[in-house]
Amino acid sequence: MQEFDATSLALPGIRELQPYQAGKPIEEVERELGISNIVKLASNENPLGVSHAVKQALAKKITELARYPDANGFYLKTALAEKFAIETNQITLGNGSNDVLELLARTYVTDQHEVIFSQHAFMVYPLVTKAIGAKPVAVPAKDYGHDLDAMLAAITDKTRMIFVANPNNPTGTFLTTEALQAFIAKVPKNILVVLDEAYYEYVPSDVRAPSFSWISEHSNLIVTRTFSKAYGLAGLRAGFAVSNAKVADLMNRIRQPFNMNELALTAAMAALGDEEFLEHSIQVNAEGMAQVTAFCDARGLSYIPSHGNFITIRFGSEAAAINQKLLQKGVIVRPVAGYELPEHLRVSIGLPEEMDAFYRAYDEIIAEQSGG
Amino acid sequence: MQEFDATSLALPGIRELQPYQAGKPIEEVERELGISNIVKLASNENPLGVSHAVKQALAKKITELARYPDANGFYLKTALAEKFAIETNQITLGNGSNDVLELLARTYVTDQHEVIFSQHAFMVYPLVTKAIGAKPVAVPAKDYGHDLDAMLAAITDKTRMIFVANPNNPTGTFLTTEALQAFIAKVPKNILVVLDEAYYEYVPSDVRAPSFSWISEHSNLIVTRTFSKAYGLAGLRAGFAVSNAKVADLMNRIRQPFNMNELALTAAMAALGDEEFLEHSIQVNAEGMAQVTAFCDARGLSYIPSHGNFITIRFGSEAAAINQKLLQKGVIVRPVAGYELPEHLRVSIGLPEEMDAFYRAYDEIIAEQSGG
Repeated sequence: MQEFDATSLALPGIRELQPYQAGKPIEEVERELGISNIVKLASNENPLGVSHAVKQALAKKITELARYPDANGFYLKTALAEKFAIETNQITLGNGSNDVLELLARTYVTDQHEVIFSQHAFMVYPLVTKAIGAKPVAVPAKDYGHDLDAMLAAITDKTRMIFVANPNNPTGTFLTTEALQAFIAKVPKNILVVLDEAYYEYVPSDVRAPSFSWISEHSNLIVTRTFSKAYGLAGLRAGFAVSNAKVADLMNRIRQPFNMNELALTAAMAALGDEEFLEHSIQVNAEGMAQVTAFCDARGLSYIPSHGNFITIRFGSEAAAINQKLLQKGVIVRPVAGYELPEHLRVSIGLPEEMDAFYRAYDEIIAEQSGG
Repeated sequence: MQEFDATSLALPGIRELQPYQAGKPIEEVERELGISNIVKLASNENPLGVSHAVKQALAKKITELARYPDANGFYLKTALAEKFAIETNQITLGNGSNDVLELLARTYVTDQHEVIFSQHAFMVYPLVTKAIGAKPVAVPAKDYGHDLDAMLAAITDKTRMIFVANPNNPTGTFLTTEALQAFIAKVPKNILVVLDEAYYEYVPSDVRAPSFSWISEHSNLIVTRTFSKAYGLAGLRAGFAVSNAKVADLMNRIRQPFNMNELALTAAMAALGDEEFLEHSIQVNAEGMAQVTAFCDARGLSYIPSHGNFITIRFGSEAAAINQKLLQKGVIVRPVAGYELPEHLRVSIGLPEEMDAFYRAYDEIIAEQSGG
């Protein structure tokens, strides 16, 4: 009888994936470092927390959780359709937008296909591609952003899907409506274009792309959004895709029927209705962004101009060392060496006092270096 | 330029899946039928609701949801490992056990493989199999339960995975420890045995299989459990797999890092520590089961003896009509024609007053038939 070999029996693409190195909970890090009040500017979360409306809605729902969630997300889909002038049958709800990105790949991509995305783009794109055994094609970035012409040129007979992030994480780079439209029009119709707009709400309203409206003309376009950023619900996992109804129908066939839990559905409904909180989040972010870029300018630090709720700053060859020193001073930012940006650190825009902690810690580090 | 054909581009296995027909929320059904206080005995949920301990833990956590969940489930895994005398690196957390069942299939099964399960078994098994394009092999049941000898005989060179549900949903059938052990010992080691124990806690403790302890000897065995049933957290989506550490490592590579949301993690921790609630849930179920079987015996209704928190009753050719009439009287039970049991209805064990509503409604239906 053969022995069980857990590794060699697994799909080759999965064997080659790096195991995810999860960080410890902040409480654990604080205990280990012997410090408290850590400032976390590492995960592009909304520093305002969840809105009062969401808290109220959740508090009401806490008693009703032994029942399965609504598998169809009836109320949330109805609210989304109304708010965004789309049809409910165009919507696929996800346990975060990570979930819908994965569902799309699993619905349309096989190990015979290639998937195109940009260098420095969100790591979920290569991850879902490799998990299926498809070939990831990372197109070199231009000025840290998507090189759309090069991405078009990378298309082959095997290309089945193209991921475009706008704004892109972790660089914050942005594609104009005109550039995007021209790109989508040139992609052959047998290739799906997945436009990931996780940071959409932070883009000034006058330059946001009317992306949902393009789907009627370009039925191979799928747009994804999330409640994790400006809506403040990262802990609850809520995202969605808007697509042609046929694409949504197919994605929903393999979607786990209860992929969004009842509290995520409840919170997303409440957050969607709270325009005031959304606008406040956007405003706090804009103010923080103006301040952090001024700080960088004053210190001679270069950065990638960002349309997100984070900024990726170039610290040069010292980046990893500065990251460590920031951590010791209780400020967690995000190293982006894994995104081929070893000289940069990504800093999420926090509350004014959180940003002050970052500024202070950085200035101390520089002072210690000159003094040492 | 080719036109976009959403359907023909999708994976063949997915095209052939039936679109999920989600029911409407109870509130919507009540509005349509013009009735209120519907009794739902349809989804094997815990009729006691969530425990007080869970409510308290959730209420505390509501303010901290703008941060991403702990990707590694540090505290929950630590608690599970301690409670069940296993190692944290054997655990894969899931957004419900549906999630870990799917992760297992995606990690080990390709379109070149066959997956074996029993007739009348949980519909997620064929679903995840077909979504990958693998061949589902449904082995005819014996007395409504798993025919383990026939399942062994169905193994071919292409078999990669076997799902075994114990107790099985929707039949409630149960395999003894001895039968399971003998079966697992006979399965070739290059085939994964997935033992789905979603209803484990309802089995009397003296006949529960010590399944986790078998993994050290049978490294191709994976056991899945859920918080959706006896722990009362169906709305929160929390489940887990216990396996060889190598299997867990591979599953965790494709697991969405934030698959369990923060409130699900919080609730599962609280539920795990609340032995009293768990025992009470089991007791209420045992009492309800004794009562419903007595009711069936008194009415001459046959049923499949069940080890779960539900009972599948044979109503004969009238089953669909009786289901409709029960619905009109405000009692939702589950038709199981989709499980090749067209003459049965599955009734979840509810609170005594909920069961009374079912008994009353059934007696009324019979009286109306004789009177008509």
